[in-house]
Amino acid sequence: MVCVRYETMPDPVLTPPPTTAYVKPIQTLAVLGLGLLGGSMGLAAIANRVAVHVVGWSHRRETRDTALARRAVHSICETPEQAVGGADMVVLATPIDAMPDLMKKIAPALVRGTLVTDVGSTKRRVVTAAAELLPRHVLFCGSHPMAGGEKGGIAQARVDLFQGQLAILTPIESTDPRAIHLFEQFYLSLGMRVARMRPDTHDRRIAMVSHMPHVVAAAIVGAQADSSQSLAGPGYRDATRIAMGDPSLWADIVLDNRDNFLHALGRVSDELQLVKQLVNSGDRRSLLAWLEENAKTRKEVV
Amino acid sequence: MVCVRYETMPDPVLTPPPTTAYVKPIQTLAVLGLGLLGGSMGLAAIANRVAVHVVGWSHRRETRDTALARRAVHSICETPEQAVGGADMVVLATPIDAMPDLMKKIAPALVRGTLVTDVGSTKRRVVTAAAELLPRHVLFCGSHPMAGGEKGGIAQARVDLFQGQLAILTPIESTDPRAIHLFEQFYLSLGMRVARMRPDTHDRRIAMVSHMPHVVAAAIVGAQADSSQSLAGPGYRDATRIAMGDPSLWADIVLDNRDNFLHALGRVSDELQLVKQLVNSGDRRSLLAWLEENAKTRKEVV
Repeated sequence: MVCVRYETMPDPVLTPPPTTAYVKPIQTLAVLGLGLLGGSMGLAAIANRVAVHVVGWSHRRETRDTALARRAVHSICETPEQAVGGADMVVLATPIDAMPDLMKKIAPALVRGTLVTDVGSTKRRVVTAAAELLPRHVLFCGSHPMAGGEKGGIAQARVDLFQGQLAILTPIESTDPRAIHLFEQFYLSLGMRVARMRPDTHDRRIAMVSHMPHVVAAAIVGAQADSSQSLAGPGYRDATRIAMGDPSLWADIVLDNRDNFLHALGRVSDELQLVKQLVNSGDRRSLLAWLEENAKTRKEVV
Repeated sequence: MVCVRYETMPDPVLTPPPTTAYVKPIQTLAVLGLGLLGGSMGLAAIANRVAVHVVGWSHRRETRDTALARRAVHSICETPEQAVGGADMVVLATPIDAMPDLMKKIAPALVRGTLVTDVGSTKRRVVTAAAELLPRHVLFCGSHPMAGGEKGGIAQARVDLFQGQLAILTPIESTDPRAIHLFEQFYLSLGMRVARMRPDTHDRRIAMVSHMPHVVAAAIVGAQADSSQSLAGPGYRDATRIAMGDPSLWADIVLDNRDNFLHALGRVSDELQLVKQLVNSGDRRSLLAWLEENAKTRKEVV
């Protein structure tokens, strides 16, 4: 089930995958931010023995206590600087808006050769921030392990959250190939599939396949009226499940990826406009062709 | 888990539920149309001993053979007239567009007091057709057992398809209260919850909670471009699963319920227009409030 998938689109900044699979074991993994993603990463890293020691930090004391109690980390620190001190790999797992400040804080504590990544859902801004704010002597590569759920927080963390899902690495020209390789190995060790693409390619595609569908699902809910929702069947429940995601997280994501999101929203609005015309004119033939085409496309998803 | 839910909205055509629960056992149930719904109904009726004998008909020989082989029916007939001949309950489970012709065909073969329903996803047209085309001496009540799946056909039929789902009965003024009562008992016997509402109320609400979401899911798929779909995660898969439904079935449903569908499509388009404005102007506060409101509404779905 474990496989590395390389994007087929030409992506000039990418180096070919290393031919050797030698990976230095991680002694200490520091996870900053212990919500659903950070907590699950700790649980998975410990369960899969990906790191000898997992140290965590979260800005809320209650979260830190719960993470320790749930054994999502071996040890906990009260400041992010302390957590990254002795780490050879650091994962930033806070909301994207908190990442630049966090980078500034930990920068002085990062030693030469430390591997650093973030797990944010949008990549252009955080990758740019990392290039500006992290010391040159660390090995940074942005990443987006595509996993999550409607309910966030450490209480929802699961050891299998990442299992079988896709992790996207978003290197840029200045990214050290070792960072790409080692983070690929890291995500593969968590049971994920991995892909690489440029931050701008990532943000454009993810706007289409994740950010836009999220907001459209919320719009379906917002359109409901006069107790129609009380007749919800499995179809409605599936189609709108993502609308229960953390509103604050999603507001940040959509605004951070505004240009791509608005483009995707424009495309789905155009599709709906087309359907409106077909139904208005009773053009069953074209409506059927449209439904068939989209059913076929959707079936191509593995 | 079995419960009868009566709509709280004033619905003047409805009679109160009978106070006695006496139900004459069904001797012969005839199921016309043996796709996913008809086939599953046969399986469930036999498994739950709802009828002593289940006879089926489908216009394709292959479907009839499969239904018999899968024991979705006790016996099979080559014409619908034959199938309804000795039946005390008849369920029309063909696509909605085929129902008026089917009614004309079986009308002469229906004896006095036969209970007849259909399981179509839209109700106004079929209920009107039944009033015109079926003999006065049968007891007709339209119904919509809300169950289905992306894959149709007898091969997909399941004994538990209806379990826990909602069946909506759509009586009109001329509907015999015994028909309402007996079909309620029938659906309860299949493990369903039941509700009653007028055909027009049904079509309006279902357009909002089922037909519109279906088409919007297809539009999300249609909007995808440049291999964005290859990055699909669980959120996209859930949100667009219904887009794999039978295109021909859905084209009929949407066109049959055109006015309500277009109204629902207008509402979701308005929601998307609002989001576009909020994101364009960077109004995080209002965007957050909108996401929060819809997440809250969605969480009210049981």
